[in-house]
Amino acid sequence: MGSRTVVAELPAELVAELTELLGERFSVSESILDLHGRDESCFAPIRPWAVVFPESTADVQAIVEASARHDIPIVPFGAGSSLEGHVLPIHGGVSVDLTRMNRIRAIHPGDLDVVIEAGVTRLQLERALGEHGLFFPVDPGADATLGGMVATGASGTTTVRYGAMRENVLALEVVLADGSVIRTGTRARKSSAGYDLTRLFIASEGTLGVITEITLRVHGIPEAISSAVCSFADIESAVEAAVEVIQWGIPVARIELLDEVQIEAVNRHSGLDHPVQPTLFFEFHGSPRGVEEDAEATAKISAEHGGLAFRWATDEGERRKLWKARHEAYFADLGLRPGARVISTDVCVPISRLAECIVETKKEASRASFPAPLVGHVGDGNFHLLLVIDPTSETELEEAQALNRSIVERALEMGGTCTGEHGIGIGKQKWMALEHGSAIGVMWAIKQALDPKGLMNPGKVLPP
Amino acid sequence: MGSRTVVAELPAELVAELTELLGERFSVSESILDLHGRDESCFAPIRPWAVVFPESTADVQAIVEASARHDIPIVPFGAGSSLEGHVLPIHGGVSVDLTRMNRIRAIHPGDLDVVIEAGVTRLQLERALGEHGLFFPVDPGADATLGGMVATGASGTTTVRYGAMRENVLALEVVLADGSVIRTGTRARKSSAGYDLTRLFIASEGTLGVITEITLRVHGIPEAISSAVCSFADIESAVEAAVEVIQWGIPVARIELLDEVQIEAVNRHSGLDHPVQPTLFFEFHGSPRGVEEDAEATAKISAEHGGLAFRWATDEGERRKLWKARHEAYFADLGLRPGARVISTDVCVPISRLAECIVETKKEASRASFPAPLVGHVGDGNFHLLLVIDPTSETELEEAQALNRSIVERALEMGGTCTGEHGIGIGKQKWMALEHGSAIGVMWAIKQALDPKGLMNPGKVLPP
Repeated sequence: MGSRTVVAELPAELVAELTELLGERFSVSESILDLHGRDESCFAPIRPWAVVFPESTADVQAIVEASARHDIPIVPFGAGSSLEGHVLPIHGGVSVDLTRMNRIRAIHPGDLDVVIEAGVTRLQLERALGEHGLFFPVDPGADATLGGMVATGASGTTTVRYGAMRENVLALEVVLADGSVIRTGTRARKSSAGYDLTRLFIASEGTLGVITEITLRVHGIPEAISSAVCSFADIESAVEAAVEVIQWGIPVARIELLDEVQIEAVNRHSGLDHPVQPTLFFEFHGSPRGVEEDAEATAKISAEHGGLAFRWATDEGERRKLWKARHEAYFADLGLRPGARVISTDVCVPISRLAECIVETKKEASRASFPAPLVGHVGDGNFHLLLVIDPTSETELEEAQALNRSIVERALEMGGTCTGEHGIGIGKQKWMALEHGSAIGVMWAIKQALDPKGLMNPGKVLPP
Repeated sequence: MGSRTVVAELPAELVAELTELLGERFSVSESILDLHGRDESCFAPIRPWAVVFPESTADVQAIVEASARHDIPIVPFGAGSSLEGHVLPIHGGVSVDLTRMNRIRAIHPGDLDVVIEAGVTRLQLERALGEHGLFFPVDPGADATLGGMVATGASGTTTVRYGAMRENVLALEVVLADGSVIRTGTRARKSSAGYDLTRLFIASEGTLGVITEITLRVHGIPEAISSAVCSFADIESAVEAAVEVIQWGIPVARIELLDEVQIEAVNRHSGLDHPVQPTLFFEFHGSPRGVEEDAEATAKISAEHGGLAFRWATDEGERRKLWKARHEAYFADLGLRPGARVISTDVCVPISRLAECIVETKKEASRASFPAPLVGHVGDGNFHLLLVIDPTSETELEEAQALNRSIVERALEMGGTCTGEHGIGIGKQKWMALEHGSAIGVMWAIKQALDPKGLMNPGKVLPP
């Protein structure tokens, strides 16, 4: 026991075990530690003590089991695109990089499902499914791993029609804190057989186990797709039009809001010429006539709210051009200030309160000392104010945090949630008690039951 | 401590406490005990020691807290329509009848959600929502309470389009084993804020707590609805047509299969004249042209599988007449034999295996010594063989159980589940290990964490 610490805080015995198991797939190289010590949040980077690259569930089991024996924390890592510090090893430990577990195990076009390893990325999956005329609808901005998307409880622009990860995961394989492996769920579309462990692991952020395999529902690429863009005199009218489309039950596939600040940014970034006004982007999926009818009904509602210039595209190239503004919003915002970072707020409220919530948020945003464009998955009641700050400025960071706090508190007061799709990580723990009250105790009881030593991504999701 | 047992096994102190709390809403009357000692399963009735009728969450808290202090089990009771013995107090205790908690607390048409007490029934909710042009899609056969539907993880004929309870519950209020109360979730459409406790309680069958309030997603009654019926030469063709409709992504709202045995029964029961052949019942929801197009595409697929006489109805009266056969299936089956009982199987398999699964099931059914019609929510891969047995015949009961076992084992082998929508209760515990493997250990860990004394509906869901 003399030479315990060879690598940072890792006991020499564990280093020896992991090296024997993984060879060069156990790494303590500076650059690799750096890469696994950060995500897309604004939290200070913090290096793991080592990084491992499993290639199989058995590898993950061995890593978790060995680490547990030495009481060393485990932090799963995918694309590193989390926005609230999910993957930062704040209590040290081993970062488990799952990106080499990126095999697509089976595509079942007849069942509209697919079985993949957790390290498969969104765009990789899109390409593989496309060959079968299929697609997976959940589309966070980043090319995240599907494991990360499950762990975060991600959603995206099509959630209004197809649901979030919660509605599109059929089953999971998970390595538990003791190194044992379980399967949750089957490939059946529905089941009432016992507790819903699949949903329990969705949005658990690696705190209950390491997700290694995922069975997803997928969808046929629709026969007809059409897109439309419509601008409005003010943001309230835009939101009210969007909400009315939902209330009428029009099965819109996407309904995205960009405010005038965001439109100006994308116009500049991408050389577009959208009127600098609050703008809704729509997409309709279905049969040719159904899509036409949905779009017509939407155009009518938009016009009633003063919508101007309802522009259309059915051709794929045209559609892509139309959606360019939406897809490049984040990069356009980064381009607003050299060296800037974007902090994204992420509240979601009942849609009847959305207009009020967005109007009040924009009032605050207009007083900010940095640009703060707004984009929203308004069909779900979810929107992001993108705070484009100078990361070296302590005062801007504080101002951004105060703004975020105010937005979260307003959303909770309106019966909403502090995070629609980005998750809790370390960034939003401070609002868990306000949102969940004593239900936090139940979450802690589950955490302790499944991870009694507290080694699975410790310090995340649940407030101390 | 001399006079401990006044009422069956209930300690006198608890009887006194509950009587003081509830007055005549604490009952040990013979008829009331009888009514709360049975459900729609074939399991032998077993009386609770007492029945209580809470009228508020505070009542439920007090009942649970007092019972826990005396180590007395709690069994929640709704409409008594469970099919696997969910509500039978097999370890004794107090039956908590929630039917007096039947207030509709708020309907939010603008948000498409509703807040109700757990004892509200399906038809009561349908009436209340109808006044606002809204409907709740999950429709088990019985007029169950919504609390029971949550606890069972129910689904129904429209699940293929609108999802099961899992997809339509936004939030719950639950009284935990220690009498404390939590709220899971908010009225926001989606959230990534912590562990998904809402889904954890869905299908937990009262074993983790008593559900007292429910926030549901509801939907606008569609602008256009049309129904159609189509018969097929053989059941394989009918199933294959149904599966192809799903695979093509036609957004059918209902797609129900009745086999020729079932058709004959409903013809006789309801004076109908459907061709005695395997038959699909369809319903389409949407815009007038969209619905027309969906129905045309479905008719085309049906014709390709030899479907005969694709009959249509758009008028409400006509539609009701068309669906009469489906809605009365259960009663028609009961009418097949005087004094009969129906045992329903409930497997769900990946849809590519459905035709094979149903064909093999029907081969077995044809050898049964009792009638065994088949109905199926075939769009989800879920079907029921309805075993119409003489409940006084031990041999028929044994034969029915053997048939059920064979069907479940085939479904599990095909990657399916032992129950699509009826739940586990006491009837299906024997297959939990086969379906879930070591994941049962995680379910037990959660059960013990939330109900350490094992008093919440003990003996249900989890195998010992």
